[in-house]
Amino acid sequence: MSVQQREIGRKTLLEEIRKSARIPRIDLSEKTGISRATVTTITADLLREGLIEEVSDDSPSKDARRGRPRVDLQIRGAARLIAGAKISSKAVSLVLLDFSGHQLADLEVEIEKPVFDSEELAEVLKAACDQLARDAGFKLLDLSGLGVGIAGIVDAPRGFVHWSPSLNARNVELSEDLGVRLGVPVYVDNDANLVALAEKYFGLGRGHTDFIVVTIESGVGMGIVIGDELYRGTRGCGAEFGHTKVHLEGAMCRCGQRGCLEAYVADYALLREATFAGGESVEQDVEDLLTAARDGAGVARSIVERAGRMFAMGLANIVNIFDPELIILSGEQMRFDHLYAEEVIEAMRRSIVQVDKAPPEVKIHKWGDQMWAMGAAAYALDMIAEQAAIGADTDAA
Amino acid sequence: MSVQQREIGRKTLLEEIRKSARIPRIDLSEKTGISRATVTTITADLLREGLIEEVSDDSPSKDARRGRPRVDLQIRGAARLIAGAKISSKAVSLVLLDFSGHQLADLEVEIEKPVFDSEELAEVLKAACDQLARDAGFKLLDLSGLGVGIAGIVDAPRGFVHWSPSLNARNVELSEDLGVRLGVPVYVDNDANLVALAEKYFGLGRGHTDFIVVTIESGVGMGIVIGDELYRGTRGCGAEFGHTKVHLEGAMCRCGQRGCLEAYVADYALLREATFAGGESVEQDVEDLLTAARDGAGVARSIVERAGRMFAMGLANIVNIFDPELIILSGEQMRFDHLYAEEVIEAMRRSIVQVDKAPPEVKIHKWGDQMWAMGAAAYALDMIAEQAAIGADTDAA
Repeated sequence: MSVQQREIGRKTLLEEIRKSARIPRIDLSEKTGISRATVTTITADLLREGLIEEVSDDSPSKDARRGRPRVDLQIRGAARLIAGAKISSKAVSLVLLDFSGHQLADLEVEIEKPVFDSEELAEVLKAACDQLARDAGFKLLDLSGLGVGIAGIVDAPRGFVHWSPSLNARNVELSEDLGVRLGVPVYVDNDANLVALAEKYFGLGRGHTDFIVVTIESGVGMGIVIGDELYRGTRGCGAEFGHTKVHLEGAMCRCGQRGCLEAYVADYALLREATFAGGESVEQDVEDLLTAARDGAGVARSIVERAGRMFAMGLANIVNIFDPELIILSGEQMRFDHLYAEEVIEAMRRSIVQVDKAPPEVKIHKWGDQMWAMGAAAYALDMIAEQAAIGADTDAA
Repeated sequence: MSVQQREIGRKTLLEEIRKSARIPRIDLSEKTGISRATVTTITADLLREGLIEEVSDDSPSKDARRGRPRVDLQIRGAARLIAGAKISSKAVSLVLLDFSGHQLADLEVEIEKPVFDSEELAEVLKAACDQLARDAGFKLLDLSGLGVGIAGIVDAPRGFVHWSPSLNARNVELSEDLGVRLGVPVYVDNDANLVALAEKYFGLGRGHTDFIVVTIESGVGMGIVIGDELYRGTRGCGAEFGHTKVHLEGAMCRCGQRGCLEAYVADYALLREATFAGGESVEQDVEDLLTAARDGAGVARSIVERAGRMFAMGLANIVNIFDPELIILSGEQMRFDHLYAEEVIEAMRRSIVQVDKAPPEVKIHKWGDQMWAMGAAAYALDMIAEQAAIGADTDAA
């Protein structure tokens, strides 16, 4: 085997073992097209390095009845320790996973302010990761890596943040800045991308190779899974949804442009309209506005319904472009029910190109920041597994 | 080697040989990770089947100086004969390629009406392909396949047309219907997808693995190349651009929905506005309208400029989603200059998410139906090469 062949073989086999909960060597050969001899050689290496382990199948399988217990291979959980963190405006949520993706601990840390420089953010994350690791009987430097999900425009392959509402500067080499200060490799991505990863590994995306996740928080985000892989756009920071335009020269957006979807559906956009609606008493708080709309008040209802129609239109455009079989609307709070409403989904269905096939299935997944952190950890786990496969990392837990 | 291994190996090696103009066996092994012994075995099969051929390198390379002329492998052009056809409202354009993609003949046939049933379309294509083959000294049944580009909503993997302006029925099994009547395998796809393939193999997309093609004819189409592959959406018929919505409850579109991009930029949309513009003399013909707009007339200019702004907004949304490094605006006619205009491109650049990196490069490619036909042939060529690789076709030319 040449060096290249060995490297490709290791990556392919480790990926296949990760995908399968447990798998015998012969199936590895069949599924990957790699010869049995090569599978034996490479898996021996992976076993010796402690990345995988053998496990015998106690079920009464055919082999067992012939007296030969089947031996499967599986990922060795203890091989690596991975953390994931989601940064929101009020807290940092963290989870700790082992190399097989099992959760060992979780943690939520309140933060004192919503905007940081990268040094301050490193301090917060360092303390939080240290605590997280200790909760599971480890220490910070036992971590093989930390995945970080952050809102904004992120070039994930470079770990570079063009802009984030959580950072006080543009153009931050965030993965590098955090990595140096924590002493642990850090992998940063847009938080909506990481929700898509979380859905893929742990949520409603399991068993689907292609789906779209739309996240609804204070902003609107999108994550795209194509061919079982997260798709970030051709230069690393596409999948932008909240600032796609739904109205030519429309409402002013916080980003400084006009007509962005967020300028119609974000909290500030709803309140802005409510504030200046004359003649009628309108609530100054989003919760109150939504309640008023549900109770049928004219102005409040008009504001909230338009948000829904704009959201449906944006969603229909995504469907026309990607023709997905599944869209997951993923958000933390029950209070976004007006965007999850059946009339919104129905308006989307009416606005897509009409053909005689089923419109995409829409699933609604309400979950908390902890699951965003799971996505961040899953991203770091993917990167670390890839490093381990090519033997580029040295730190085994 | 197992059957699976052999099949994967054949596909990988034939693809690699197709990608390289010519390549020595040792490079094949290096690039694919397939062992030299397996490369030798499989390429011997491919040589015996006449799919590839050996060609000796006459250049004074290192090997040659050591007295051993280097032997490369290349695709054997004569192995297969492939046609491509683009169906427009006035003509069918065709090209004939050999297995290595070299053009052997071309043909343009006027058609008597713009809308057909699939039987009539088969008659037209059969006569045209017969003529095309004879022009190059072959006959119809020498064709290994025919690629067909048609406007509308096409599920390419199934060869199924949900809807096309060229067909008088919805839900047509067009690949099968045509294939049976021509006696040759037929591969149908949306025409804009095939323009993207043509750009990839023969046009401005060469050397790019990721780019977006937007086609401008009477409608607006899109083709997406991601990771060196045409991306058709997760269920085969995405990449819809002309009927994405640019205005909530906006102008009525020919498709029956409101606010589609085409309802603002298509010929009929421009004329519709001109017809009802009161008080000023406005031309009733698109060419005249565009001329009037260029000459500065108020209403005409207002109509054409809004079309440009809507087009820019739609384009900006595509950029936000795909973050492409290259967008190719591909259209036949000079008369769409108002959509290719620098102020339209500039408006797109201003409407995308603003980060400190270069906006996508926009290239304008004006070409004729012949190149759309090249795309159709390229699609058939890809499918036929895949069939040949797994030994699933039997007809060698």
